[in-house]
Amino acid sequence: MVRDPILLTPGPTPVPPEIRQVMARPIPHHRTPEFQAILKEVGAGLKTVFRTQQDVLIFTSSGTGAMEAAVVNLLSPGETALVIQGGKFGERWAEICRAYRISVVEFNPPWGKPLDLESVKQETTKNPSIKAVFSTLCETSTGVVFDIKGLRAAIGPKPLLVVDAISGLGADPFDMDGWGVDVTVSGSQKGLMLPPGLAFIALSARAWEQVDRSTSGRYYLDLRLAREAWKETDTPFTPAISLIIGLAESLKIIQKKGLDQVLANNRNLAESVRKTIKGLGLELYTDPACSSNGVTSVKVPAGVDGKELLKRLRKEEGIVLAGGQGKELAGKIFRIATMGAIGPEEIRVGLAALEKVLSSMGWKAVLHG
Amino acid sequence: MVRDPILLTPGPTPVPPEIRQVMARPIPHHRTPEFQAILKEVGAGLKTVFRTQQDVLIFTSSGTGAMEAAVVNLLSPGETALVIQGGKFGERWAEICRAYRISVVEFNPPWGKPLDLESVKQETTKNPSIKAVFSTLCETSTGVVFDIKGLRAAIGPKPLLVVDAISGLGADPFDMDGWGVDVTVSGSQKGLMLPPGLAFIALSARAWEQVDRSTSGRYYLDLRLAREAWKETDTPFTPAISLIIGLAESLKIIQKKGLDQVLANNRNLAESVRKTIKGLGLELYTDPACSSNGVTSVKVPAGVDGKELLKRLRKEEGIVLAGGQGKELAGKIFRIATMGAIGPEEIRVGLAALEKVLSSMGWKAVLHG
Repeated sequence: MVRDPILLTPGPTPVPPEIRQVMARPIPHHRTPEFQAILKEVGAGLKTVFRTQQDVLIFTSSGTGAMEAAVVNLLSPGETALVIQGGKFGERWAEICRAYRISVVEFNPPWGKPLDLESVKQETTKNPSIKAVFSTLCETSTGVVFDIKGLRAAIGPKPLLVVDAISGLGADPFDMDGWGVDVTVSGSQKGLMLPPGLAFIALSARAWEQVDRSTSGRYYLDLRLAREAWKETDTPFTPAISLIIGLAESLKIIQKKGLDQVLANNRNLAESVRKTIKGLGLELYTDPACSSNGVTSVKVPAGVDGKELLKRLRKEEGIVLAGGQGKELAGKIFRIATMGAIGPEEIRVGLAALEKVLSSMGWKAVLHG
Repeated sequence: MVRDPILLTPGPTPVPPEIRQVMARPIPHHRTPEFQAILKEVGAGLKTVFRTQQDVLIFTSSGTGAMEAAVVNLLSPGETALVIQGGKFGERWAEICRAYRISVVEFNPPWGKPLDLESVKQETTKNPSIKAVFSTLCETSTGVVFDIKGLRAAIGPKPLLVVDAISGLGADPFDMDGWGVDVTVSGSQKGLMLPPGLAFIALSARAWEQVDRSTSGRYYLDLRLAREAWKETDTPFTPAISLIIGLAESLKIIQKKGLDQVLANNRNLAESVRKTIKGLGLELYTDPACSSNGVTSVKVPAGVDGKELLKRLRKEEGIVLAGGQGKELAGKIFRIATMGAIGPEEIRVGLAALEKVLSSMGWKAVLHG
C-alpha cells in the first residue's frame, strides 16, 4: 500500500502534516523569550479549550501523570474519594488513589451505560467523608460520555469534582467553569491531534487551596512547583519542547475552526458512524443515551474473531481501529474514533474497509429492525 | 540571520535533521507489531549506551521523573540516603528524597571541585543506616564529572549506588555494570540528541529486589508496572511515540559511529574548547581534574554582564549558550556543551561569536600564564 495507515484510534489520533512540520524544525532552547512566547500562547489557547479562567498547567507525561497529580495534590492518605468507574479509565482513578492510601468508595455504573445520578446522590449523601469525586468525561474504553454537569448536581456543591477529560477534551462538549468542575486533566494525543507526551491540568480556586494542605508525597507532579514556575512562564523541569511547539499549532487550528464547530463536526461524524454501523447490521456496544462523539464502540459480530479482524484491517487495508481493553472487552468490541484530525474521508475509507474485511471473514450483514 | 540558532546548551542539544525527519512521519499506533519492533530495537540500543545487561525502561517524562522513580521504588519513608550534592542536580536528589520523607545525609563537595573520596568513605562508615547513595555522573550545573567508579569503591559494596547520568550518558565515559552501579537514570535531550520528553532507568538485580519492598506511594513511576509491561514489549501508559521513533534513529547514529568514538569525539571537542577558552584569556570554572567532556563552564570575566552576554550572543550571533543556574552561579558563569550532535564546526562558530561579543562589550583578552 502506498499511503500511510489511517489511524481511527481514540489516541493517538492522526497528527496533521502542518503540526508535524513545525515539530520537525530545529529545536529551540526552552529558556528563551521565543519559547516563553509559545508557552504564553498555548496557556491562553488551553484555557479556551478547557473553558476555564484558571491556568492550565503542562506536564511532560502521559495523561495518567496528570491524573496522579490530581490525586496527590488534593488528597492525603486516609482521606476518602468516590470514584465513578464503569470502564478501564474510571478504574484507573481508583488504582491511583489506592497507591497513595486514599480510601476509595467505588461507584460502578454498568459498562456502556449512563450514570444513574440518583444512586450517585444517595452514595454521596451516605458518605459525608467523601472529599472528592473522580470521574471520566469520555470513558474511552467503552465509548460512554458521562453527564458531568448532572454529576455535579448529584454530588452537591461540597465535594471536589475531578474529571479525566483526556479523550473527551475537544471531542465531547465540556465546560469546566460552567459545570463547576474543580480539576480537569487531559492529554495531547486525542482531540488536540498531537503525539502523546503532554498532559494538562487546571484547578479551581478551592482546589488550589487543597494543594498546600495535601500531605501525599510528590515531586515531579507537585503542583506547587508547577504553579511557581508558571508565574515566570516556565516549567519546573525541562518540558517536551517539540510537543509544546506542536500544541501551539494545534490550538491555532482549533481556534481557526472554532471549538463549537470542532465539536459539531465530531458529533456529525460520530452520528454518521453509528448510522452506517447500524445500517451494516452491526450492533453498537454503548447505550445511545450516553454515546461519546469522540469514539464509537461496536460489538464484534458472532462468529468473527475480533483480534483477527483488527489485524487484517491493519495489514490488508491500512486501517487501524482500537480493540476492546481488559478481559471484559478484549476481542468483544472494536472502537472507531471521530475526533481530532479524523474527518469524513478517513471514516468513509475506514468503514468501507471494515465491511470488506468482515465480508471476507464470512460475516453477512443481518439488518436489524 | 538566515541560519537557525546554534544550540551549544547542555540540554536540549541540537536534534540532527535525520532524527527530526523520522519523527515528522505520520504517527503509528503504539500497540502494533511495527511499534513493538521499534521498542525492541531501542531496548537493545539503550543497553549498549548504558553498558548494562539489565533492561533499560522508558518513562514519558523529563529526566527528573526517572530520578523520582529511583527514589520511590528503592526507598521507604524513614530510610536513609547519602546524597552527593555539589551542584543543582545533586541537590535535586535530596529534594526528591525529602519530598518522600527519606532521611538525607548530605555530602557537599565544593561546587566545581572533585569528590573527596576519603571523606565520602568516612561519611559512609559513620552512618551504617545509609541504604542508598545518590550521585550525578556529570553535574550539568557546574560541568563537573564525578568519579563514579571511585565512589563505589569508597562506599563499599553494601549501599545501593544510584547515578543521575542524565547529561553524562553518551557524553562522559560510564560503565553501569562494570562500575557496580545499581540504578542509572538518563534523559533524551542530551547525548542522545533528541527533544526532551523521554527518561530512562536501569536497575541491577539487587535494586529490583528493593522495588517490591518499598512502601513509598507511586503509580505513574511505579517500576513494577513498567517491568510487567516491558515483558510484553509494552509500556504501562501511552508512551511518547514520536520521541521513541526518534530514539531508534539516534541509537542507530551512535551505533554506526561506535560509542567509544562518540566519547572520544566529545573529549577532543571539550579539550579544544578548554584550550581556546584559556587562549582567549578566559578562566575555566571547573577544576581540570574533574571536567566533564559534555559541558565546559567558564567564568564570566570581570566587568561583563553575564546575562547581557548570553542575550547578545543569542540575538546578534544566533548562538545559544547556557548561563549559570541558581543564585550561586546565575550571571557568574556560562556553559558550552560538547555532546550529542554538537561538532567542531558549531564550536568554532560559537567560540568566534563569543570572542566577538565579549570584545564589543569592552572586554580585552588578558593572556594568563
